[in-house]
Amino acid sequence: MEKSQLLDCYTKIRPYIHRTPVMTSRLLNEMAGADLYFKCENLQRMGAFKMRGAIHAVLNLSPEQQSRGVVTHSSGNFAQALALAAKTVGIPAYIVMPENAPAVKKRAVHGYGGQITECTPTLQARESTATRIREETGATFLHPYDDYDVILGQGTAALELLEEHPGLDYVIAPVGGGGLVSGTALAAHFFGENCRTLGAEPFAVDDAYRSLLSGKIESNASTDTIADGLKTNLGEKTFPLIRQHVQRIIRVEETEIVEAMRLIWERMKLVTEPSGAVPFAAVLRDKDALKGAKIGVILSGGNVDLSQLPF
Amino acid sequence: MEKSQLLDCYTKIRPYIHRTPVMTSRLLNEMAGADLYFKCENLQRMGAFKMRGAIHAVLNLSPEQQSRGVVTHSSGNFAQALALAAKTVGIPAYIVMPENAPAVKKRAVHGYGGQITECTPTLQARESTATRIREETGATFLHPYDDYDVILGQGTAALELLEEHPGLDYVIAPVGGGGLVSGTALAAHFFGENCRTLGAEPFAVDDAYRSLLSGKIESNASTDTIADGLKTNLGEKTFPLIRQHVQRIIRVEETEIVEAMRLIWERMKLVTEPSGAVPFAAVLRDKDALKGAKIGVILSGGNVDLSQLPF
Repeated sequence: MEKSQLLDCYTKIRPYIHRTPVMTSRLLNEMAGADLYFKCENLQRMGAFKMRGAIHAVLNLSPEQQSRGVVTHSSGNFAQALALAAKTVGIPAYIVMPENAPAVKKRAVHGYGGQITECTPTLQARESTATRIREETGATFLHPYDDYDVILGQGTAALELLEEHPGLDYVIAPVGGGGLVSGTALAAHFFGENCRTLGAEPFAVDDAYRSLLSGKIESNASTDTIADGLKTNLGEKTFPLIRQHVQRIIRVEETEIVEAMRLIWERMKLVTEPSGAVPFAAVLRDKDALKGAKIGVILSGGNVDLSQLPF
Repeated sequence: MEKSQLLDCYTKIRPYIHRTPVMTSRLLNEMAGADLYFKCENLQRMGAFKMRGAIHAVLNLSPEQQSRGVVTHSSGNFAQALALAAKTVGIPAYIVMPENAPAVKKRAVHGYGGQITECTPTLQARESTATRIREETGATFLHPYDDYDVILGQGTAALELLEEHPGLDYVIAPVGGGGLVSGTALAAHFFGENCRTLGAEPFAVDDAYRSLLSGKIESNASTDTIADGLKTNLGEKTFPLIRQHVQRIIRVEETEIVEAMRLIWERMKLVTEPSGAVPFAAVLRDKDALKGAKIGVILSGGNVDLSQLPF
């Protein structure tokens, strides 16, 4: 990947995304013993950074591909992002969702004009349903994270952050499938002055941490975490980028995630989803090593069910 | 009051406050059938617009007055604002709070360096305790809203909003004691092109609505509303300004307040306190009359107890 690819991506998607604000909090800086710059992707269109990658992938399709639409399987933010990206460009989006997905998420996808097909809640059923739709409609399958167009799109959040704060020592992002953190690492590599990338994930789903240790993609035996966006494993495209460009991954306890989330809500007055609070939790946990540093913190999303809060 | 007084106030307080962002939401605009510009005073220092009035009143004291400190009685945001304003200038703040005030509010005042004196929870006890402290310490008593310096300070939120969006047709603010709405009305009068000011209050405490009808300051027989910042009556200084400059007051039901608050949290990803959601609730309720208008909405504060949410 080259610097020019990330710049081209940004030029292309810029008319379709929000340039989200960067916020700071004196109190949170005092708690962390560092200068934190929160990149507020919870204020991005549809409430998460996923919009960046989705619109980039959609825009990079040929006109003929676009005309036949896009398909993905997801129960999370990428489903909403792809539906909205497709609506923005005026093409169909077919979204395969497990039948037990929360009603609030189905409503959101429907609200963005996505055509939902329900299936039994197994990865196999999701994949076979998506394949069937692809064959029937000619739609292009888009992967939520293991796709270079998606990775580049997600990297534009850190690109904007580094444009405004070029002297950051670190930038930290949550790690699920690795699309956000690998895009972030590329941005830090190309546009930081001397900026290292950190990943953050729950102990409960520390597959990325273990993958870096073992040198191969590890999975999680169970996925019992409040950070529902971070349960997925790394992909064939994200893992090598993470090995090359991410300095290390900091793991956090569930109680630390909830406490970080509470602080962001109470002190910054920002609604963040649990996954979005994981990097700040990691900064607090590792404060001795990060003392005095300038740290960009990707606050990745704000889509949370208000009737299911942990406090 | 004159235009120059509001400008002088703004020049004076500007180094001590945040210039809060103005946010918009396509979806909320669609729901309202109008263009809404949310002035995010929940992102103000200490989490509410009250910081503007408090710091202005403190800065306008003589050096000798400042040296003896300030005193007020409040169980709400003004207590925190005055404590932080006094700390900012480096003078003592004596805060009288009812002994049954929530622990979270006492902690906040204490955190800003305020010296708390507890009293029995009656207005009489609060006033006599404040008087005793004033006599013992020589501190200056500052009223939370019925004070021209405070009113001017609160008006600077709308001043900033109109600087960025000079063509607003309306600006709407919640009405408690009337400090915010009267300051807002002055700003709209002096700096709007043709901008009318609206007030918003709960039906449950519609003293301001009834005061405008009867021509004298009315009070509330009961104060059973979730909007805990709006329970107070108008003052001798705020009422005449409201009569002169506020076009009308829109009243809202409790369910409408909760629904507006939920929409701001879910869709704008902003933590607002119930009082801060009242103006948006009013815009939704009165959407037929406001159709197509450009409306500045003062989102007054974000200090909410996360363990006491209405959803």
